[in-house]
Amino acid sequence: MSLTPSLTPQGFQTFITNLGIKDSTDDFVLIKSDVPCVADGVFTQSLFAGTSVTISRRNLKDNQAQGIVVISKNANVANGAIGTTDAEEVIQIVATETGISPDNIVIASTGVIGRRYPIEKIRAGLLGIGNKLTTANFNLAARGIMTTDTVPKLAARQVGNAKLVGIAKGVGMIEPNMATMLAFFFTDAAISADVLRSIFRSIVDKTFNCLSVDTDTSTSDTAIILANGLAGAVSESEFAIALQEIANELVLKIARDGEGATKVIEVTVDSALNYVQAKKVAKAIVNSPLVKTAVYGADPNWGRVAMAIGKCEDELSINPENIVIRFDNIQVYPNILNEDNLDELRQVMSQDKVNIHVSLNIGEAIATVWGCDLSEGYVEINGKYST
Amino acid sequence: MSLTPSLTPQGFQTFITNLGIKDSTDDFVLIKSDVPCVADGVFTQSLFAGTSVTISRRNLKDNQAQGIVVISKNANVANGAIGTTDAEEVIQIVATETGISPDNIVIASTGVIGRRYPIEKIRAGLLGIGNKLTTANFNLAARGIMTTDTVPKLAARQVGNAKLVGIAKGVGMIEPNMATMLAFFFTDAAISADVLRSIFRSIVDKTFNCLSVDTDTSTSDTAIILANGLAGAVSESEFAIALQEIANELVLKIARDGEGATKVIEVTVDSALNYVQAKKVAKAIVNSPLVKTAVYGADPNWGRVAMAIGKCEDELSINPENIVIRFDNIQVYPNILNEDNLDELRQVMSQDKVNIHVSLNIGEAIATVWGCDLSEGYVEINGKYST
Repeated sequence: MSLTPSLTPQGFQTFITNLGIKDSTDDFVLIKSDVPCVADGVFTQSLFAGTSVTISRRNLKDNQAQGIVVISKNANVANGAIGTTDAEEVIQIVATETGISPDNIVIASTGVIGRRYPIEKIRAGLLGIGNKLTTANFNLAARGIMTTDTVPKLAARQVGNAKLVGIAKGVGMIEPNMATMLAFFFTDAAISADVLRSIFRSIVDKTFNCLSVDTDTSTSDTAIILANGLAGAVSESEFAIALQEIANELVLKIARDGEGATKVIEVTVDSALNYVQAKKVAKAIVNSPLVKTAVYGADPNWGRVAMAIGKCEDELSINPENIVIRFDNIQVYPNILNEDNLDELRQVMSQDKVNIHVSLNIGEAIATVWGCDLSEGYVEINGKYST
Repeated sequence: MSLTPSLTPQGFQTFITNLGIKDSTDDFVLIKSDVPCVADGVFTQSLFAGTSVTISRRNLKDNQAQGIVVISKNANVANGAIGTTDAEEVIQIVATETGISPDNIVIASTGVIGRRYPIEKIRAGLLGIGNKLTTANFNLAARGIMTTDTVPKLAARQVGNAKLVGIAKGVGMIEPNMATMLAFFFTDAAISADVLRSIFRSIVDKTFNCLSVDTDTSTSDTAIILANGLAGAVSESEFAIALQEIANELVLKIARDGEGATKVIEVTVDSALNYVQAKKVAKAIVNSPLVKTAVYGADPNWGRVAMAIGKCEDELSINPENIVIRFDNIQVYPNILNEDNLDELRQVMSQDKVNIHVSLNIGEAIATVWGCDLSEGYVEINGKYST
């Protein structure tokens, strides 16, 4: 979608440019609020978390921020002390140019790991940017944070008098764990830090943390929300619903744009003992390369879903005799298929979005997760990404 | 390799044929010892373990067996009660035909999940097989247990006066966990059940359980060893070394024949706090689709190894600042590479076998695991397996 002015929250400015990080597409995005914002962020749990993650985590400790810097095509990860010095310098330049306090600036960076920023180019490119900020263009911002993404990812809602917009990027190295790929949310709603934090973390957990493209957790995962309060207070529940809807939209956009993906896979596991179990089983299915390739080929090899459930070896309360497996409305296990049903199953598996539904029949909990199929395209893209 | 008569253990007979399970290649293998054997087996931990696994586990409880039946191209998994009835009938027919007690027969079956055996064809094909057994041909047996394998997998050693031979199959759905794909070992050494069990389980854990093609744990994983004792006692340590060497050879053959694989990946993690940690980190690397595709493309994107280590989020004793990452002898982290080194790294990553070495520098433990790269071939093979 393209964001219309009527859904653009007030009081934000942007500057988007190419600094020559890798190629000639936009690779630098600055989003600045006119006033300091209530803010929250969740980040990758990777042991190799990037220096941008470390700095942003520190700068968000007081739940306040005014500017977000995003550099794409270079993750600035695993570069040691010089990587941290480079990131701090970028923040200092932006602070000087814009008048924002450096500890109110957060930074995110994704792309190749283990290569230093072209710091001379960055210094030159950032000269005078304080004067180049214009009324926020979130469409361009969504495009500027892309790496191997093929489409920008943006969603927005009205909440009372306020607006809420979210942008995200991510196509590979995606198995967020208590965090996410890059996603940024901006609102002019007035909301307290505690409420924002509680709503934001609960929604990230049920949306971005339920998404997986390839089981590889990024070193740079970052999700941040800024609320500048200029539109005044809104209903908390309406705000939560709008945020959840935006997050869901972005998750589906990311799954659909997964590297090489031709189909979205949505897996729901219900009647589980608890949410953790439901999500674990659902993730085992959506992450199985054999399930993913079967969906890609529309091959009615449903037994691979049974295999994937079987991998959850610690979940001893699960009994195969109680389980029901469906693709859309076609029951495949217990197995009642004949050649006609197999053809129907092939049809269902040929759709843009393939829904797999598992009932464990041992409890009340339910979880839904999202992913994508595995095609030759994923291999092709990732066999030659850095070169 | 092809097994020579001089390495064939005495006192085993085989019968290999095509029963028409799926196509016209051999799909039924019977290996019979002239006398009851000391035996042991380890099996998949899958919650959806196949009926063959359940039956074999039961029949091996007394550590005695005399015959092994292997059916390929159909896993007989997730078929409910009728699947169990079919498997028991196969065992009963073989028992009647050969004179072996049914509880001394073990069975293994791999292939598509959720399809019933063509039981009429099997009944017809097994008539009179008691008279068709001939001196063991382990080369044909290794071929008869194949599904999508492209080469038979066999290894053998002399131990004192005894011989030890192992055969294995497996190319996909391979992430053994406390068990393995199909692997069978036969020896005429005399060895006690307790010693055999202890040696066998320890070696399976360090070999087959350190192998992964695609993180998908099979419902049919089975590793069984039969010792008929006809060659008399041997040195326990020599036997253990020979078994370990054979298992290592088979593991490398499986990794090399991984679906679509063009290269073997060997990952060693040393100076870890303990073996579990070393193996966990090594598995995270060898299973990462981004590491696998980088190896496939000989793309010197070593940062993905750092990313994969970072995924072991619970291992808080691991500190990126202590870690050293090498490909063969080329250190990539801490990062000292320039364009010349990158070319060297490309060379190393173009080899048939790519060795990745990680030093955690926090302890003494070491683990080595094996896997293979991820190519378009994996997707192609698995997008249309059942059809």
